[in-house]
Amino acid sequence: MANFGGHAIPGSFFLLYGFWLTVKRILQHYWRSNQPKGRQTLPPIFKRLDYIEGGLQVFAAFVGIMVEQFVVDGPHAQLYDKDSWVKLMNWQHSTMYLFFGISGIALILSTKFLLVPSGVGRLALSLALFVEGFLFYYHVHSRPLLDAHIHSLLLVAVFGGSASIMLEVFIRDNIILELFGACMFILQGSWFYQIGFVLYPLSGPDWNLTDHGNVMFVTMCFCWHLAVALLLVLFNFRSKGRDVEIGMRNTSSNSNSQKALLEESDEE
Amino acid sequence: MANFGGHAIPGSFFLLYGFWLTVKRILQHYWRSNQPKGRQTLPPIFKRLDYIEGGLQVFAAFVGIMVEQFVVDGPHAQLYDKDSWVKLMNWQHSTMYLFFGISGIALILSTKFLLVPSGVGRLALSLALFVEGFLFYYHVHSRPLLDAHIHSLLLVAVFGGSASIMLEVFIRDNIILELFGACMFILQGSWFYQIGFVLYPLSGPDWNLTDHGNVMFVTMCFCWHLAVALLLVLFNFRSKGRDVEIGMRNTSSNSNSQKALLEESDEE
Amino acid sequence: MANFGGHAIPGSFFLLYGFWLTVKRILQHYWRSNQPKGRQTLPPIFKRLDYIEGGLQVFAAFVGIMVEQFVVDGPHAQLYDKDSWVKLMNWQHSTMYLFFGISGIALILSTKFLLVPSGVGRLALSLALFVEGFLFYYHVHSRPLLDAHIHSLLLVAVFGGSASIMLEVFIRDNIILELFGACMFILQGSWFYQIGFVLYPLSGPDWNLTDHGNVMFVTMCFCWHLAVALLLVLFNFRSKGRDVEIGMRNTSSNSNSQKALLEESDEE
Amino acid sequence: MANFGGHAIPGSFFLLYGFWLTVKRILQHYWRSNQPKGRQTLPPIFKRLDYIEGGLQVFAAFVGIMVEQFVVDGPHAQLYDKDSWVKLMNWQHSTMYLFFGISGIALILSTKFLLVPSGVGRLALSLALFVEGFLFYYHVHSRPLLDAHIHSLLLVAVFGGSASIMLEVFIRDNIILELFGACMFILQGSWFYQIGFVLYPLSGPDWNLTDHGNVMFVTMCFCWHLAVALLLVLFNFRSKGRDVEIGMRNTSSNSNSQKALLEESDEE
Repeated sequence: MANFGGHAIPGSFFLLYGFWLTVKRILQHYWRSNQPKGRQTLPPIFKRLDYIEGGLQVFAAFVGIMVEQFVVDGPHAQLYDKDSWVKLMNWQHSTMYLFFGISGIALILSTKFLLVPSGVGRLALSLALFVEGFLFYYHVHSRPLLDAHIHSLLLVAVFGGSASIMLEVFIRDNIILELFGACMFILQGSWFYQIGFVLYPLSGPDWNLTDHGNVMFVTMCFCWHLAVALLLVLFNFRSKGRDVEIGMRNTSSNSNSQKALLEESDEE
Repeated sequence: MANFGGHAIPGSFFLLYGFWLTVKRILQHYWRSNQPKGRQTLPPIFKRLDYIEGGLQVFAAFVGIMVEQFVVDGPHAQLYDKDSWVKLMNWQHSTMYLFFGISGIALILSTKFLLVPSGVGRLALSLALFVEGFLFYYHVHSRPLLDAHIHSLLLVAVFGGSASIMLEVFIRDNIILELFGACMFILQGSWFYQIGFVLYPLSGPDWNLTDHGNVMFVTMCFCWHLAVALLLVLFNFRSKGRDVEIGMRNTSSNSNSQKALLEESDEE
Repeated sequence: MANFGGHAIPGSFFLLYGFWLTVKRILQHYWRSNQPKGRQTLPPIFKRLDYIEGGLQVFAAFVGIMVEQFVVDGPHAQLYDKDSWVKLMNWQHSTMYLFFGISGIALILSTKFLLVPSGVGRLALSLALFVEGFLFYYHVHSRPLLDAHIHSLLLVAVFGGSASIMLEVFIRDNIILELFGACMFILQGSWFYQIGFVLYPLSGPDWNLTDHGNVMFVTMCFCWHLAVALLLVLFNFRSKGRDVEIGMRNTSSNSNSQKALLEESDEE
Repeated sequence: MANFGGHAIPGSFFLLYGFWLTVKRILQHYWRSNQPKGRQTLPPIFKRLDYIEGGLQVFAAFVGIMVEQFVVDGPHAQLYDKDSWVKLMNWQHSTMYLFFGISGIALILSTKFLLVPSGVGRLALSLALFVEGFLFYYHVHSRPLLDAHIHSLLLVAVFGGSASIMLEVFIRDNIILELFGACMFILQGSWFYQIGFVLYPLSGPDWNLTDHGNVMFVTMCFCWHLAVALLLVLFNFRSKGRDVEIGMRNTSSNSNSQKALLEESDEE
């Protein structure tokens, strides 16, 4: 969808999902930190949230596919017509949505059934990002310099997120890894908006798509987005942490591990 | 073997092997999950299946090499004739089979002898895939666009499988990793068929090997194969899991770990 | 800053930081080795040093940004003027400093607050190096052969350090990894000086920027810098180790683990 | 040294070193497998062997550097003469030897001093291979097709070995990884011989350096070398294992773990 809206919609989704992951994982982290050593089971509320997350993924993927297919100038579920392919771009976007839908199914299955390991959801999410990047990669060739460059920077966020979430399959409950993955989603979301602003400016003149200065600025701008995403997650982490520590001071705790924690955080 | 059959035969082998790995590893996973904590030894049936698997690999590799060498237009074990190499393509295919044969030998040795660690079989299988991809990689240059592209997509499945199985040497008994490896074999098998259909269509006109639309479709089609392979493995996993859980409910179990498992799966 | 000083200043900073990391981490390693098994907490002096390190990073980053912006021919915080970007090079350098500043903030936060895991500082430092390499990578294109080559060798040290420090997030208290990271900082620092000497020679004729012999020499010279950095760290490690072992012999120790250590080091 | 001998000498060294590593590591593995669980210390003979290995590395590196420098047409320790570099090829080879020397020093230090972790030797060996590959990589450009290709295949063995030995720093006492590293040395050694035979044939006509068939053959031939190296290590492993198992049957053992081992190996 080659207009500003076509970049703002996925951008908003990825931003929201990134923030949602940040909040969920920080809460899980503080919950685990506050428990005595033996108990590691999360309360059922997290299970219910995972159902909702998985369900929303499946729903959004379904809506996305329907929109891509049955929009006015879409392929209307027709793949091949006479002697040429019909609207391959829409079909590729549908394929991307399909994988996010599969990721939602995997999340629900792994939450519901005890014997399906919880890493299945992560693997499917990582593959969904991989497929998104994979299709984008072959998308981008033979475009003007700035257009190709700004999309290839998107791939840094996409593949970075994919690799990070793939690692979560093997390294469990590592809060840094989990927040880095969330951070990559936020970066991807905000960068989608940036692409929209650059390629389809809402006001002012069009950007020169072959100017080297523009390429240099855009590269640097990507780093700024990364910095903002990092700082957002870092301060979100810290502010939630302060609430939790205050809560811990007010609660009378019996387990040794909690006492030790309190003592150390008091001495600061 | 530049015809449809030449792609369907390896495709069928990889498909079968992928399904076989899926079933074997799911059964092993549920067996391990049902055992009380201390006992991790698999029953002897799995040992016998590994002998059969290794033996079949050696046998298939031997037959493959013989066919490649002594087929009517093959090199008949002659490597160099007068001043040029004889049928290097057949020799390369023989080399690929050789490594799958070595992988079979390694599997048998590591199953039979206690002091040979079981990872040896995985390493050899991973190297067999690596060599296949390595030879294919230098195979593909200087072909028409679509031909080169469709083969390079095969490499994604080949090297993906190789990396995944290499990881299994270090990360043992991780069901997600094991099933991902099986998934890559299924993907490779089905993609061999797809290559056959595209390059040597059974009916209809030939594909335009230089059309960019065809390249875009083929890239997307590869993702569909991946989606089907993932869903096949996922639902296979789930359906086997249901049988096992039902079996567990009917059995009176004594160990605590099993009780806990039952309670949690009942509450769902 | 295209002169010798513009390379000597960052070079000195990286050299100093590399040596500082070497000393800090060797001391931490010997402290941990001398403790009986149970106690792993570092003494408060290390905490205070981390505050100072983080604070200096933030301060140096702030000064760096100010200098880049408000130097005589700098952009004076102006990004866009009429129809072109203003001094993008200075803006890119400011961006690099910004990330080292964020890394300092993350180090302080993770030292101060118990619930912020200590790996956050490492991740931020790794990302700061990644961003530095990332911006340099797009910097270097379209320069003369030797200029491009000598900067791309810098990237080996930058990305090597970034990867090594990223690994430290997951593999904690591994002295080899920690010293390798420090080594990459020393290498980067000394290579900055080398770049200065080659591109802006203090005396003698200019280097021929397109001569293949110069490229070959520079490649080899990079390896020499690596060798010197490795040997510096290795002998520093060894000499500190000797002091510690002598100290241990003079102290009467009660714990078994220390006794065993002494016996083994005596028998050498 | 552009002749057959110049490839046979390093080839012989790498072959010998690979076999030496194979034997040492298999013996260490069986020693560890035969010990009861608690005791993991290797007998002092292994310590002495490591001294010898390190010493030989330092000695060989020293001799190698001397030969490269003071051979008749060498640079005689002169780096720059008038306005050009002197014999950069010999200087690059000296640099490679230097790193193997450093690796020997690191091995001796980590064997001698308890507080220097044993992984330091592995890291230095891995870096020595990395530097070898790094210098070769820039060596190879702008040569005839076959010459460049046959050297870039060498890089597969060099970087494969470097990565494998780097992994050993983090994953200790994994016999598969250790033997794979040894295998890469054997492969590198035998491939040096192959390069000698192809580029400087002892008898018969010269190879056509631009023929695509030759490139295809050489690629396949590399896989054969790999297969031979793998089988050599695998059967070496197995045959040593048989001796050990026989030895274990003849010894009356008391520890449970040994009994269990014997029972299982008897039942085969």
